Amino acid sequence: MMVQLVSGLVGDDEVAALFGDDVHLAALLSVESALARAEAACGLIAAEAAERIVEVCRSLVLDRDSLHHGTVKDGVVIPDLVRQLRAAIGEPHAGAAHLGATSQDILDTALALQLKALFDLIDRRLAHVLTLLDDWAAREGEVVLMAHTRLQRALPFTARDKLATWAEPLRRHRERLAATRRSALTVQIGGPVGTGDSFRGHAPAIIAAMADELGLSAAPAWHAERDRIADVGHLLAQIAGSLGKIGQDVGMMAQNEVGEIRLAGGGKSSAMAHKNNPVGAEVLVALARFSAGLQGTLLQALVHESERSGAAWTLEWMVLPPLAETAGAALRHGARLVDGARFVPMA
Amino acid sequence: MMVQLVSGLVGDDEVAALFGDDVHLAALLSVESALARAEAACGLIAAEAAERIVEVCRSLVLDRDSLHHGTVKDGVVIPDLVRQLRAAIGEPHAGAAHLGATSQDILDTALALQLKALFDLIDRRLAHVLTLLDDWAAREGEVVLMAHTRLQRALPFTARDKLATWAEPLRRHRERLAATRRSALTVQIGGPVGTGDSFRGHAPAIIAAMADELGLSAAPAWHAERDRIADVGHLLAQIAGSLGKIGQDVGMMAQNEVGEIRLAGGGKSSAMAHKNNPVGAEVLVALARFSAGLQGTLLQALVHESERSGAAWTLEWMVLPPLAETAGAALRHGARLVDGARFVPMA
Amino acid sequence: MMVQLVSGLVGDDEVAALFGDDVHLAALLSVESALARAEAACGLIAAEAAERIVEVCRSLVLDRDSLHHGTVKDGVVIPDLVRQLRAAIGEPHAGAAHLGATSQDILDTALALQLKALFDLIDRRLAHVLTLLDDWAAREGEVVLMAHTRLQRALPFTARDKLATWAEPLRRHRERLAATRRSALTVQIGGPVGTGDSFRGHAPAIIAAMADELGLSAAPAWHAERDRIADVGHLLAQIAGSLGKIGQDVGMMAQNEVGEIRLAGGGKSSAMAHKNNPVGAEVLVALARFSAGLQGTLLQALVHESERSGAAWTLEWMVLPPLAETAGAALRHGARLVDGARFVPMA
Amino acid sequence: MMVQLVSGLVGDDEVAALFGDDVHLAALLSVESALARAEAACGLIAAEAAERIVEVCRSLVLDRDSLHHGTVKDGVVIPDLVRQLRAAIGEPHAGAAHLGATSQDILDTALALQLKALFDLIDRRLAHVLTLLDDWAAREGEVVLMAHTRLQRALPFTARDKLATWAEPLRRHRERLAATRRSALTVQIGGPVGTGDSFRGHAPAIIAAMADELGLSAAPAWHAERDRIADVGHLLAQIAGSLGKIGQDVGMMAQNEVGEIRLAGGGKSSAMAHKNNPVGAEVLVALARFSAGLQGTLLQALVHESERSGAAWTLEWMVLPPLAETAGAALRHGARLVDGARFVPMA
Repeated sequence: MMVQLVSGLVGDDEVAALFGDDVHLAALLSVESALARAEAACGLIAAEAAERIVEVCRSLVLDRDSLHHGTVKDGVVIPDLVRQLRAAIGEPHAGAAHLGATSQDILDTALALQLKALFDLIDRRLAHVLTLLDDWAAREGEVVLMAHTRLQRALPFTARDKLATWAEPLRRHRERLAATRRSALTVQIGGPVGTGDSFRGHAPAIIAAMADELGLSAAPAWHAERDRIADVGHLLAQIAGSLGKIGQDVGMMAQNEVGEIRLAGGGKSSAMAHKNNPVGAEVLVALARFSAGLQGTLLQALVHESERSGAAWTLEWMVLPPLAETAGAALRHGARLVDGARFVPMA
Repeated sequence: MMVQLVSGLVGDDEVAALFGDDVHLAALLSVESALARAEAACGLIAAEAAERIVEVCRSLVLDRDSLHHGTVKDGVVIPDLVRQLRAAIGEPHAGAAHLGATSQDILDTALALQLKALFDLIDRRLAHVLTLLDDWAAREGEVVLMAHTRLQRALPFTARDKLATWAEPLRRHRERLAATRRSALTVQIGGPVGTGDSFRGHAPAIIAAMADELGLSAAPAWHAERDRIADVGHLLAQIAGSLGKIGQDVGMMAQNEVGEIRLAGGGKSSAMAHKNNPVGAEVLVALARFSAGLQGTLLQALVHESERSGAAWTLEWMVLPPLAETAGAALRHGARLVDGARFVPMA
Repeated sequence: MMVQLVSGLVGDDEVAALFGDDVHLAALLSVESALARAEAACGLIAAEAAERIVEVCRSLVLDRDSLHHGTVKDGVVIPDLVRQLRAAIGEPHAGAAHLGATSQDILDTALALQLKALFDLIDRRLAHVLTLLDDWAAREGEVVLMAHTRLQRALPFTARDKLATWAEPLRRHRERLAATRRSALTVQIGGPVGTGDSFRGHAPAIIAAMADELGLSAAPAWHAERDRIADVGHLLAQIAGSLGKIGQDVGMMAQNEVGEIRLAGGGKSSAMAHKNNPVGAEVLVALARFSAGLQGTLLQALVHESERSGAAWTLEWMVLPPLAETAGAALRHGARLVDGARFVPMA
Repeated sequence: MMVQLVSGLVGDDEVAALFGDDVHLAALLSVESALARAEAACGLIAAEAAERIVEVCRSLVLDRDSLHHGTVKDGVVIPDLVRQLRAAIGEPHAGAAHLGATSQDILDTALALQLKALFDLIDRRLAHVLTLLDDWAAREGEVVLMAHTRLQRALPFTARDKLATWAEPLRRHRERLAATRRSALTVQIGGPVGTGDSFRGHAPAIIAAMADELGLSAAPAWHAERDRIADVGHLLAQIAGSLGKIGQDVGMMAQNEVGEIRLAGGGKSSAMAHKNNPVGAEVLVALARFSAGLQGTLLQALVHESERSGAAWTLEWMVLPPLAETAGAALRHGARLVDGARFVPMA
């Protein structure tokens, strides 16, 4: 949903790939596969059925056009995917696939899997930016800068003080990420209306087994309880916000009249050859503001009516991927900005 | 920035294309071309220079990789595009291209051009939905339905009354669209800092000529005055919002217990064969809520500091295309929903 | 809903009063009064009944505790207000009051009345700020300042150029206000479910007569069509946004290192005696961002289900008054900021 | 900033009081008092000075008009409050008050104190709603209801299942609240630019002592690191959101056509005597949507430029109190709604 050239600036290909169809469909099949194994383990389906399902999930090439049309018609991809999956499995095991599950079981668990990969990537990038900030502090921490409060020169302080203000929230975000990973990235298994009845008393065991196989947390079905999703969005918006603050600060310091920072590779103007625009700093501010708005919208999806709201759920799908990509882009820009910058001591 | 399968559901290819690189780059070259013609007309550049620029703009195949890298580096595509354009023009006319203009002149005017195409498309779709609603009223307007207030049965009324509540805002949106087209889709020509000085007194004439050629309104440079952009976003959010109301209403009426509407082609469930889900209605609600959030973010971009804010401007680029696509998708879903639905008289 | 001391800073008593109970209840009684007159004019009620209703509406002192409890219980003030009103009218005319009307008829029309007063106030303040800007341009328009693009020094321009960028959007807001007044400030009369049936064919005449008496526009009932309300919010957010841009610019220019503007009466610091904080400028930015968020929320209320949504309607009541007060506060701060400021020529 | 009658419906007096001037000023004086004690303990000021300051803080009646004017002028209340405080202390100890501190130290720590009281209240109310839900489950948990997915009848389930979906997020919110209390409610002591230099090496000891006295967590100065504030807002929006889901569900179940719930004390209509409107349910939805929007705005304040942003900080003051009041009102309405409701078994 964005001019591609602008995507190069404000997007993030690596994160976008985590929400692309390839990864998404692979995650869905991983979940169907894990479900089959867990159901075999508790005797709900035969071991050979599970083997056949796992094998087909590993190799199945899905008809994407059909998935596309199915998604448009059904509002979710799963009915058509299960149809294709069962056709590929063939008799006598076709019916053992997706047994007892509802679309949301598969989609929410797959989302948790995709978010797990996202969290790994985000955490790596947070660590990387923190390393860059720490290195910078080691190199230039003693540089004396002017602190500014309410847009006015206040008192001198050191680059170390400034860098700490940038780094500390990111350090806390790593803790938040670890906590959110545990609490929010959970298997979703509940069957049609979330009661687990379709799993004939085995839902807790299936959830535990799938959590173990997929590296997710176990929790009772949470179909219509979207607080964990809101937590994920909050984490992403926090990250983009903190990087937006770094961008805003860098932009202020890079003003010609202030000149407290020197940036590598600033942008050129088509009209003024003398300009060296702090493009990365500005993009960080834009990303933070975009992210804040998206999280405000994601919170609207907490009003998830009855046992499954197509409206609220679809809204999550619209908001979460750009929220993730925005956080990823912010970390990418943050790293580049920090890496190439040098402080200029007060005159 | 979205799972492609979900894009099929909540996106709109036709609108997305209007913000894709092909259309965008063509618009940028159209603006450079119109600028050259206007500058020749007032004697700022030679007629042959303008001819050569126009000719190259018509046929130039841009190096997209280079544009991509330039955008990432400069925060805007124009410096690299102008470099390529001038190289293709060659001497002695290279310097006559983009003369006196700044990146924002070209980008904002191209945006106005792209929005003009969007407005045409949106207006056609509004008219189409209105025709469908009017036809429906002609067919089933006398059907007696139960009006509901505050989620409770209130009093009987007719389908005609219901349809009027859906149609009247859309009719007003067509008026809003026409007014916004006149007031907001304007040429932007101001030079580096918006004063027009680089056009040596000819800025008003150039603006008038370009407006005439490009089918836009003429207005003094508005580089840092983003109220027109906010109006465009408001129009789009209004449209998605009104269709969200239709979707919400249809969803309420399509409840099994209410049963006042029968929908064509509802969605299937992967677990419950008896379900006929009002997918289109739910998607309309999701689109409306997404759109409302985006417009809240676009309004943040009114705080556009100094003579050009990279942060606020970039934020517009992130928000406007999905706002447009959301409105387009809402109209598409609205037409499909309305087209396939029938009222069921009160028992 | 705000610390009172902070209200003094970010609120606006004059606007708050327009949404306070005194004005609100007076507006409600004015509408009941106008309704009675209009119903008498078309013969729905007796002339003496209307006289009695008008007389009581003029002098009635409402029991506020009772209204408070009624609002909490019914979700709207009208049932209890009508009960009190009818009790005060007494027989034989009690039943002629509120005849055929529903709560929303009275509340929405009263809101239009209150918004009319708000629009008057806002327009006066817009005109005042524009006068101050024009005077400033007359006084100091030739001062040479440095234009800044993307946070960097760009090229010199004049204070007149700068002031025009601040004034032009406000001028356009006056036009928007005039247009929105005509299109959005309309009588709401539709009866229980908006069809007007309870007025026995006289709804159009009643609407016309009430519009005439109350100084509002006439339009068919729009109970569940909230696009006009969204337009009002958009206007208010536009105004706050444009003043936020002025505040942001002034803040940037007032930086010690830039020093292009001198402000009267800046804020003191409790710790740094040398500080002269551009408080008004900063508050304008905060108001703009607050306002943008509120309008994003108001647009959520377009999804107004069925013939009356208690949820969406209540949401409007929560958002519109602070949106109005924020716009009012922005204009107040804007006037004070502009009035006390002087440009400092480039060194 | 709201019609008072509407405040009775959507506001919460008890929470509002926590953000009212009385509590706010008392908190500010408590912080000045605790600061004096902590500074005496580490020898920065004399013990008698601290005693005098503590005594005056306990009994001082502040001149509110003066505070009001000071806030308007300085953008913060502290300079005038410290002036009044020092005048009341008199010589020789006047200068020992507020020693080394900046306005933000006092305001942010006082905010943490106020939020501590808010968290106590919120946690009590969460526990109360949970008790009501548990009691309800004990009473009517076996009632068979119809689950609805995507607005359609799905399969039967029990009231216990339904109640669990409402209760589980609230249970998690209590855990979130406990975690946020520890991580986010921290003393802020950093001096003019957050480095603690004005406390001559004693900042860590002062922070520890104040945390101990005030019942807050200790943390290094976080003047420009607003992630903790964003966490507080997120918690409040989560709570309002989960109650909004309960409200939405109750509203759906209370539809005449569905009739799965019977509510106590529904609202009356001014026009339709047969109506029994689910006012509390609708208000919960409105509160959730309002809250989501506010949190989206609070996240904008993460872009807090330099060492203190008057704009971003003021924005927090505008958003946090209504966010808190909205969560409080949601819990109040939630308790009342749940308390008075009974399930109706499927026919």
